[in-house]
Amino acid sequence: MELLELTQYIDIVWVFLASVLVFFMQAGFAMVETGFTRAKNAGNIIMKNFVDFMIGSILFFCFGFAFMFGPDVGGFIGTAGFFNPENLTNVSAFEAVTPELFIFFQTVFCATAATIVSGAVAGRTKFSVYCLISAFVSLIIYPVVGHWAWGGGFLGTMGFIDFAGSTVVHSVGGWTALMGAVMVGPRIGKYNKDGKANAIPGHSLTLGALGVFILWFAWFGFNCGSTLAVNLDIGHIAMTTNLAAAAGGLTVMFLTWARYKKPDISMTLNGVLGGLVAITAGCLVVTIWGAIIIGIIAGVIITFGIPFIDQKLKIDDPVGAIGVHCMNGVAGTLLVGLFANYLPGTEDAILGLLYGGGIDLLIVQAIGVIAVAAWTLGTSFLLFYGLKKTVGLRVEKVVEIEGLDVHEHGIEAYSDFVSRMN
Amino acid sequence: MELLELTQYIDIVWVFLASVLVFFMQAGFAMVETGFTRAKNAGNIIMKNFVDFMIGSILFFCFGFAFMFGPDVGGFIGTAGFFNPENLTNVSAFEAVTPELFIFFQTVFCATAATIVSGAVAGRTKFSVYCLISAFVSLIIYPVVGHWAWGGGFLGTMGFIDFAGSTVVHSVGGWTALMGAVMVGPRIGKYNKDGKANAIPGHSLTLGALGVFILWFAWFGFNCGSTLAVNLDIGHIAMTTNLAAAAGGLTVMFLTWARYKKPDISMTLNGVLGGLVAITAGCLVVTIWGAIIIGIIAGVIITFGIPFIDQKLKIDDPVGAIGVHCMNGVAGTLLVGLFANYLPGTEDAILGLLYGGGIDLLIVQAIGVIAVAAWTLGTSFLLFYGLKKTVGLRVEKVVEIEGLDVHEHGIEAYSDFVSRMN
Amino acid sequence: MELLELTQYIDIVWVFLASVLVFFMQAGFAMVETGFTRAKNAGNIIMKNFVDFMIGSILFFCFGFAFMFGPDVGGFIGTAGFFNPENLTNVSAFEAVTPELFIFFQTVFCATAATIVSGAVAGRTKFSVYCLISAFVSLIIYPVVGHWAWGGGFLGTMGFIDFAGSTVVHSVGGWTALMGAVMVGPRIGKYNKDGKANAIPGHSLTLGALGVFILWFAWFGFNCGSTLAVNLDIGHIAMTTNLAAAAGGLTVMFLTWARYKKPDISMTLNGVLGGLVAITAGCLVVTIWGAIIIGIIAGVIITFGIPFIDQKLKIDDPVGAIGVHCMNGVAGTLLVGLFANYLPGTEDAILGLLYGGGIDLLIVQAIGVIAVAAWTLGTSFLLFYGLKKTVGLRVEKVVEIEGLDVHEHGIEAYSDFVSRMN
Repeated sequence: MELLELTQYIDIVWVFLASVLVFFMQAGFAMVETGFTRAKNAGNIIMKNFVDFMIGSILFFCFGFAFMFGPDVGGFIGTAGFFNPENLTNVSAFEAVTPELFIFFQTVFCATAATIVSGAVAGRTKFSVYCLISAFVSLIIYPVVGHWAWGGGFLGTMGFIDFAGSTVVHSVGGWTALMGAVMVGPRIGKYNKDGKANAIPGHSLTLGALGVFILWFAWFGFNCGSTLAVNLDIGHIAMTTNLAAAAGGLTVMFLTWARYKKPDISMTLNGVLGGLVAITAGCLVVTIWGAIIIGIIAGVIITFGIPFIDQKLKIDDPVGAIGVHCMNGVAGTLLVGLFANYLPGTEDAILGLLYGGGIDLLIVQAIGVIAVAAWTLGTSFLLFYGLKKTVGLRVEKVVEIEGLDVHEHGIEAYSDFVSRMN
Repeated sequence: MELLELTQYIDIVWVFLASVLVFFMQAGFAMVETGFTRAKNAGNIIMKNFVDFMIGSILFFCFGFAFMFGPDVGGFIGTAGFFNPENLTNVSAFEAVTPELFIFFQTVFCATAATIVSGAVAGRTKFSVYCLISAFVSLIIYPVVGHWAWGGGFLGTMGFIDFAGSTVVHSVGGWTALMGAVMVGPRIGKYNKDGKANAIPGHSLTLGALGVFILWFAWFGFNCGSTLAVNLDIGHIAMTTNLAAAAGGLTVMFLTWARYKKPDISMTLNGVLGGLVAITAGCLVVTIWGAIIIGIIAGVIITFGIPFIDQKLKIDDPVGAIGVHCMNGVAGTLLVGLFANYLPGTEDAILGLLYGGGIDLLIVQAIGVIAVAAWTLGTSFLLFYGLKKTVGLRVEKVVEIEGLDVHEHGIEAYSDFVSRMN
Repeated sequence: MELLELTQYIDIVWVFLASVLVFFMQAGFAMVETGFTRAKNAGNIIMKNFVDFMIGSILFFCFGFAFMFGPDVGGFIGTAGFFNPENLTNVSAFEAVTPELFIFFQTVFCATAATIVSGAVAGRTKFSVYCLISAFVSLIIYPVVGHWAWGGGFLGTMGFIDFAGSTVVHSVGGWTALMGAVMVGPRIGKYNKDGKANAIPGHSLTLGALGVFILWFAWFGFNCGSTLAVNLDIGHIAMTTNLAAAAGGLTVMFLTWARYKKPDISMTLNGVLGGLVAITAGCLVVTIWGAIIIGIIAGVIITFGIPFIDQKLKIDDPVGAIGVHCMNGVAGTLLVGLFANYLPGTEDAILGLLYGGGIDLLIVQAIGVIAVAAWTLGTSFLLFYGLKKTVGLRVEKVVEIEGLDVHEHGIEAYSDFVSRMN
C-alpha cells in the first residue's frame, strides 16, 4: 500500500459517502412533494419519484453520461461512451476514484434534476406522459447542460462557477418545472373565475417537514461532496451550506410573520430549501457571511416569489418548486458574481465581503444562466408541446377530481382513514 | 502514524459507515411493513421491528457471533466465544478493523435477517410468540447459515459465492417468513370460501415508499460494505446494486401496466426490493449488464411470483416478503452461477455476458441454496410447530378483527384520526 | 501528500460523517415529538424543531462557539471569537480537522440540546416565546456548560468524564425541559380535579417510531464521532451504544409487560432513547457488559420515572423528555463513576466489571451533574419567569383546545383527513 493509493482510497470513501447522501435526496423530494400535495394523489407522486430515479439511472448510464462527459464536440455535447461509459479515456475523475464510482456519483446528481419536475405538475398530469418527460430530462436536457459546465463544454471554459449545481442541477429542474406547470395548466379549482388563487393545502405537513430535513441532511453530501476529493475546504462548504439554509428559513419565517401575522410553516420550509439551492453554486467560494446574506436573499425571493408565481402569474405550482429551484438556482448563480471572495484553503469570514470576481465574473455567470434557461425552456417546450398535441398532457376531469391514485393506479394511499377530500 | 495503521483507519471508517447504513435498514423495514399493512396493527408491527433488533443485538453478541465465527466444528458451527466474542483469536477481520467493530457490522447483518419475518406474519400473530421466533433466528438459525458461508463452514470451503447475503441473509429471512405465513395461516377475510383472494391494502403508501427509499439507500452500505475494506471495486458494486434495483422496479411497473392496465405502486416498490435482494449475492462478480438482466429477472419473479403465492398457493403474506426475500434470494444466488464473469478490479461491462463459473459454480450455488432452505425450513418448522402445539401462534379472532394494537398493547397508532377499518 | 496530511484527511471525513449524522437527529427529534403529540399541534411542533436548528446555527456561530471555546476566564466562560470563531487560535481541534469543520461539528451538538425542550412544552406554549427560549439555550445556557466540560473550563480540569454529552447535551436540554414544563403548566384536560392524570396519546406511533430509529442511527455519529479522530475505539463505542439502547428498550418492554400486562410501545421507544442518553457519558470508558447494565438501569428509570413525573409530580411532559434526557443524562453521568473500567484501546469485557474511577471519580461526576443542574435550572428559571411575567408563556384557552396549528400558523397539518380531536 503506497501513499498515492491511500489518497485514492480516502477519496473513494468520500465520493461514496457523498453519493449515497445525494441518493437519499430522492426520499426527501418524495416526502416533500407528497406531503405538500393532496392525499388522493399521494401514491401517484410517490410513483413518479421512483420513476425519476429508475428511468434516470438506466438512461444516464446508457446515454446521459456519454453526452455529459464523452469527448467534446464544439463545446456543446459529448459524443462517445454510450452503453459502456466506464471505458471512456478522457475523464480525469476516473483515475481519481475509479470510473464506476464517478458514474454513480454523476447518476445521483442527474436524478436530482429530474425529480424536481414532479411536484410542479402534481395532481393533473398523466402518468405515462410524466414518464416520458422524466426520461427526456435524464437522457438529454440535463446531460447537455452538465457538459457545458462540468464536462468540458463552453461554460466551464469561460470560467462559469457553479460549484455544486444551482444552475446545472436545480435551475434545469426548475425551468422544466416552470414549462410543465404552464403547459399542463392549473388544477381544477385552483383559480376562481375572477382569477383569485385558492390555497390547496398539502395532506401531511409532517411528511413534508421530514422531507425537508432529509434534503438538508443530504445536501451536505451534495455540496461538500462536489469537491470530489477530501480537502481542507469541506468544513467551509458545510458551514456556508448550513448557514444559508438557516438564514433562508428564518428570513421567510419572520417575513411571513410580519406580512400575514402568522409564521407560515410550508413557506418557511421552502425558505430552507431556497437557501440551500441558492448557496449551491457558491458554497466553496463565498465567505460564511456571504453565505448568510445569500440565504437571506433566498428567503426574500421565496417570500415574494412564490406568491408572485401563484397569484400574479397564475402558474399553479403545488409545491413551490419553481420558486425554490428555478428562481433561487438563478439567483444563487448570479450572486456568486457578487460574493465570490473566499479563497479556498483559507478561513477569512469578515473582511472584504464584496469583491466577487468583478463585473467579468458576473457577466459569465449571467451568460451561463441565460444559456441554460434557453436550452432547458426550448427543449422542454418542444417536449411538452409535442406531447400535448399528440397524447395530451392532462388526465380527464373525473380523474383529477377523484384522484390520480384510484384512476391511474387502482389504489388509495390511505385506505384505512376517512378522507374529507373535495 | 504508519502507512499500515492508516490503511486500518480508513477501513475502520469504511466498516463503520457500512454498519450504520445497514442499521438504518431497520427503519426501512419498519416503514415498509407498517405502511403495507393495516392501521389497526401499525403499532404492533413497529414494536416487532424494535424487538427484532433489540433481542437480536443482545443474543447475537452473547451467542450468535460465537456460533457464526467461533472455531469451526465439522464445517457446521462455531463453538467458542460466547459472552465475549471479542476475545476470539481465529477471526482475521478482527485485526483489520478491531474486534468490536467487526462484531457490530455482523450484528446489523443478523438483524436484517430477523426483521424480514414480521411482515409475513403481520396482523394475526401473538406478540409473545413473535418475540420467541425473532430470538430464535438471531440466536441460532441465522448464525449457523452465516457460519456455513462466511465463518469457515462447508459452503465457503466449496466456493459458494454469496457476496453480501442473498442466501445467507435474505433467503434465511424469507424461508422463515414462508414457514411462518403457512403455519400461522391467512388473516380473517383474506380468502373467500371459494378460495378467491381478497386484496387487503396497506394503510400508508407514503410510509411504505419512504421505507423502500431508506432500504435502497442503506443497501449501498450492505453491498458495498461487504468488501470489509476500501478497494477499487466499491464503485462497481454501487453501480450493479443501483441498476439491478432500477431494472427490477421498472420491469414490474411495465409488466403490471401491461397486465392490469395500470402501473401497480406497491408491486413496483417490491420490484425495487426484489432487484436489490437478487443482486446482493453477485454484486461484485457480475458485470453492469449482468446486473441489469438480474434486475429484470427479479422484476419478472415479483410480478408473477407474488400473485402466485397469494392466489395459487393461498399463502397470506401481507407485505410480499416471501417473493422479495425468499424467491429473489434464491434466484439471485443461482444467477451468480450464470453471470459471474466480472473480474473484480477491472471494468468490462459489455463483452462476454454469459460465462459464469461454468456448470461447477452453478452446482455449488444450488447446493448452498438447498442446504440453507433445508436448515431454515427445518428449524423454523420445529419452532413454529412447537409453539403452535403449546401456546398457540394466533391471537383470538376478536383481537385480529379489532386490531392487535388495542388488544396486545392497549393503544391506537393513530388516535386522532377517524378510521374506516373493517 | 504526506502521511500527516493523510491522517488529517481521514479525520476530516470522520468528523464530517459524524456531524451530518448528528444533524440528522433533528429529523429524529421532530418525528418523535410530533408523533407522540396531537395532530392539531403537529405543524407547530415541526416548526419549533426547525426554529431550534435555524436560530441555533446562527447564534452558535456568532456567539455560542466563542462562549464555549474562546479563551477561558476563571474556568467559567470563553470570551473571544464572536462573529468569526474560525479565527480563534487557542482551539487545538482546529488544527486537526480545520476550524470550520470543528465549528460545524459543535453546531450540531448545540442544536441537539436546544431541540429537547420543544416536546416537553408541546401543545400550550406560545410560538414566539418558544423562539426566545430556544435562542437562549443556543446563545448561552448550553455554551457555558460546554465550556465547563469540553472548552477548558473547571469541570474538564477536575477530570469530569462526559464523553459525548449525557450531562453537557442531554441534561442541559432535559433540565430546561423540566423548568419549561413546570412553568408553562399542564395541558388542559391532562389532570382531573382530583389530580388523576389522563393519558393524551400521540397522533402517529409510526412517525414516532421512525424518529426513534433515526435517532438510534444518528447516535452512532454522536457517540463514536466524539472521538474527533479515527482510532481503534470506534467499534467499542458503537457496541456499548448499541447494546445500552437495546437493553434499555427491552427492560422497559418486559417491565411494562409485567406491570400493565401489555408491552407498552411508546414507553419501550423511550426506553431505547433512555439507554442511548445514559450510555453517552461513558460509552468510551465502560465495558460492553457495563453498557448493558447501564442500559438496564436506564430502562428501569424510564419505566418508573416517567409515570412518577406524570402522576406523582404532576408535571405534564407530553413526550417524556424529562425522563429520557434529564433523568438518564444524570444517571448516565453518575454511572460512569461506577463502571468506568474499560481501558480505551483494549477489548476486555468480562473481568472487573465494577471498579470505576473509585469514589473520587464518582464525586467529580456528581459535582458536574449538580453544577450543570444549578446553572441550567437557574438561567432557565429566570428566562421563563421573565417571559411569564411580561408576554406570558401560554396560548389562550381556545388556541390550545382548537390547536396551535390553526391559530398560530393558519394551517392544518392533515387537511385531507377527518379528525376525532377533542
